[in-house]
Amino acid sequence: MSDTKKATPTQPRHVRDVSNWDKETDVAIVGFGGAGGCAAIEAADAGADVTIFELASASGGSTAMSSAEIYMGGSGGTRVQKACGFDDSTEDMVTYMMMSAGPQADEAKIRNYCESSSAHFDWLTGLGVPFKDSFHEERAIMCLTDDCLLYTGSEKAYPFRHHAKPCPRGHNLEIEGDNGGPLFMKIVTENVEKRDSITVEYETRALCLIADDEGAVAGLVIRQGKKELNVRARKGVILCAGGFNMNEEMLQKYAPKLLRGNEPIGNPGDTGTGIMMGMSVGGAAINMHEGFISIPYYPPASITGGIVVNDKGQRFINEDVYHSRLGQAVLDQPGDRFYFILTVEQYGDYEKFNFMGASIAGTGETIAELEEELGLRKGTLENTINIYNEDVAAGEDTQFHKGAEWLQTLELPLVALDITPGRGAFVPYFTLGGLDTLPTGEVVDPQRNVVPGLYAAGRTACGVVRRADGYSSGMSVGDATFSGRLAGKQAAARS
Amino acid sequence: MSDTKKATPTQPRHVRDVSNWDKETDVAIVGFGGAGGCAAIEAADAGADVTIFELASASGGSTAMSSAEIYMGGSGGTRVQKACGFDDSTEDMVTYMMMSAGPQADEAKIRNYCESSSAHFDWLTGLGVPFKDSFHEERAIMCLTDDCLLYTGSEKAYPFRHHAKPCPRGHNLEIEGDNGGPLFMKIVTENVEKRDSITVEYETRALCLIADDEGAVAGLVIRQGKKELNVRARKGVILCAGGFNMNEEMLQKYAPKLLRGNEPIGNPGDTGTGIMMGMSVGGAAINMHEGFISIPYYPPASITGGIVVNDKGQRFINEDVYHSRLGQAVLDQPGDRFYFILTVEQYGDYEKFNFMGASIAGTGETIAELEEELGLRKGTLENTINIYNEDVAAGEDTQFHKGAEWLQTLELPLVALDITPGRGAFVPYFTLGGLDTLPTGEVVDPQRNVVPGLYAAGRTACGVVRRADGYSSGMSVGDATFSGRLAGKQAAARS
Repeated sequence: MSDTKKATPTQPRHVRDVSNWDKETDVAIVGFGGAGGCAAIEAADAGADVTIFELASASGGSTAMSSAEIYMGGSGGTRVQKACGFDDSTEDMVTYMMMSAGPQADEAKIRNYCESSSAHFDWLTGLGVPFKDSFHEERAIMCLTDDCLLYTGSEKAYPFRHHAKPCPRGHNLEIEGDNGGPLFMKIVTENVEKRDSITVEYETRALCLIADDEGAVAGLVIRQGKKELNVRARKGVILCAGGFNMNEEMLQKYAPKLLRGNEPIGNPGDTGTGIMMGMSVGGAAINMHEGFISIPYYPPASITGGIVVNDKGQRFINEDVYHSRLGQAVLDQPGDRFYFILTVEQYGDYEKFNFMGASIAGTGETIAELEEELGLRKGTLENTINIYNEDVAAGEDTQFHKGAEWLQTLELPLVALDITPGRGAFVPYFTLGGLDTLPTGEVVDPQRNVVPGLYAAGRTACGVVRRADGYSSGMSVGDATFSGRLAGKQAAARS
Repeated sequence: MSDTKKATPTQPRHVRDVSNWDKETDVAIVGFGGAGGCAAIEAADAGADVTIFELASASGGSTAMSSAEIYMGGSGGTRVQKACGFDDSTEDMVTYMMMSAGPQADEAKIRNYCESSSAHFDWLTGLGVPFKDSFHEERAIMCLTDDCLLYTGSEKAYPFRHHAKPCPRGHNLEIEGDNGGPLFMKIVTENVEKRDSITVEYETRALCLIADDEGAVAGLVIRQGKKELNVRARKGVILCAGGFNMNEEMLQKYAPKLLRGNEPIGNPGDTGTGIMMGMSVGGAAINMHEGFISIPYYPPASITGGIVVNDKGQRFINEDVYHSRLGQAVLDQPGDRFYFILTVEQYGDYEKFNFMGASIAGTGETIAELEEELGLRKGTLENTINIYNEDVAAGEDTQFHKGAEWLQTLELPLVALDITPGRGAFVPYFTLGGLDTLPTGEVVDPQRNVVPGLYAAGRTACGVVRRADGYSSGMSVGDATFSGRLAGKQAAARS
């Protein structure tokens, strides 16, 4: 291959075929979102010269588009957890995150994350990220006040609460409204800009890696304007280029279940090129079939008091879980329709929020009437509701173990919302598969041999978060920023 | 890298570093199971010199360990289908196989398979594979007589029967007992041996591929005894080395759900090295999380008349599906226990077969008694059985659409078998992920660019079969032999 051959992310260019290095740096970072920004800061602070190459004309990535809640805790608690009276043990956090990630959990990575999480909080506040010492008690997907701490996952729900003491770990930035993401990236960007050893080159596309005979990564090919340039990265390349949410062909091939959602969450650059570049030099892409996919059904929190049923009128989940756990459960269930059954009171503020986008599928003055409107076989929903109401009266959801605080008798009349994916409800998704890495951020091949000179972080890597089943808000930005930092440090230390 | 550097499947050796070619051939094939054998025959018949390298001391692979039912039909029917009075349309077969493979279906591959399937039957009989013109009517996982044709999937079950006209497509070899696999591989091996242009080298381990600067595959490194040898493959290398069923680390990383099974099906060489070799030169491994996993619950067929429930006493599937569709459904269900609820009559011959290995979890003279023995909440199983029995009386399973032929009133007393994975029942599994290939067998990278000189077939490739949900017996041997043939032809034609 020569310099002039078309560069494609799936094929590395050979060092031998590079006639001229157009640019040189110690650490080259692809992507300036939360992962790339934090990687750059740590690499620079460890003494390396750093260049970030960003496709867009500004920093931000998917982190800036998120709420930027950050999942942190353990070690007795972050400053905010302690101030709010929560004593969070590392072991409880490890247990919760291991359950969240399921059978494909990477224990070494999770343990490292949890052990260092409280220190990560301190590092972020050191950058100037503001967190208020306050607790937001209401069940919410995001915190719209400037309060900090909230439950953002299934910590208080079955089965998690039986194995790990619940503790809120979502840390929301001190800013009103859903504006945490832009503020977070503004602060990270300012920290990048004030470091002289970091150069940022915007409107730059990373085309492919450059590797030597040993398979070690020596740099990358970029395009600026119409020019293709060879960049030498003396210490290594860190891929922080997001997931593959915006690449429909890759989604179809690797994670077709996500296509049952209707709203890819992320920035337009999440086309999987970072992952493909890693694969081109032997990096293993893992967990590629998994993603976050959700039916966000609260606010209003009152909806949690209702029950979810399938088209047999059966319940199948405790409704007090995090919303993406419902999303995954729905995908795993047989049947064509899914409903939230609510009392008029639980329905309450629904239209005001209308966050879920679900329409009313039926109402009933009697259960039989509702069954008929929903096309359910007579007696099915009735059996479900009778059992549920008996359990509510006795104070224990014997079937699905919804927390006692959410047990309310389903009194007539009832309303059914259609939450079936593909029928109007908001079903966001993003990918959770990526390059396999060591906790250090080093990319590894299928036998877990390190690919020298290559690092990955954020959604280009497969991190601590692995499934919709066990997701909690803040885990992605938490993972991106933390894994970015580790990769930055590790790359800077390479001789 | 030099000749003396340790060869590993995850890293190709460079042509430049090969000081001497120890062996030369046109087409090198790794693995002598069904795929490798058929690939060799086609490549030789197209004029190529072929060498097969097989790890074991004899041919066979996983095909010889299977029943070697072969899934074929379409084009109006195979000779046997026609003789038995079945007129099988290609479109019905395509529809069925597309539904089987689900959202990750490869339509081009499936269409090609179905359009050529009847001709594949003729090719096999041309080799001498014997099929009797007879139909085995009883619902069975394998045919223990020498009859040929049987329903081996969910063709007659909901929802498949509503979309594709049911037709039996499993072709069992003309031999008594479960001896199809050894006979099939004996015939393939004889066909290989009588071709002078094919050499077979047993007790030979493929260590890694050899590639050039363009990323084209030029050969492979093998080990024979204590010697590492460089093999030049002028036209290409075909990887037919099986899946990764026997590599626990890979299973944990890529397909952890399969580890809920207790019996890996395949030969000891299914360690994923073929897939890893393909990945090492940029080939994309896809569908890696999927596999066949099953709770084989018939014979006796009478069990189909019972119902399956979870630990809420809920049904969740039509019990007349193929057994791996039940396996997948169980894995997707919430809950810790799964039961087959049977009448004494349905239980019938169970102990005689005892194929499933499931133990009795409870019995009841009344439903309430059975609920108590199973630890089910009072009224749950009762509701399920009442609805089911009402449906049986009316002649239609309104809830899960089990075929009318299997609808029998659940009369007391009842028996419950514990079919929970991990509690004694036989739960076999094998991998269905592998290298992405074109229908020709050419291995492709994540952007579907062909990796020159590299082919894959059988379980090293990701073929027409993609899920336990839609598996039918005979699809794997059908896919392996057919994809092997195509890869052999394609490699032989490469200039």
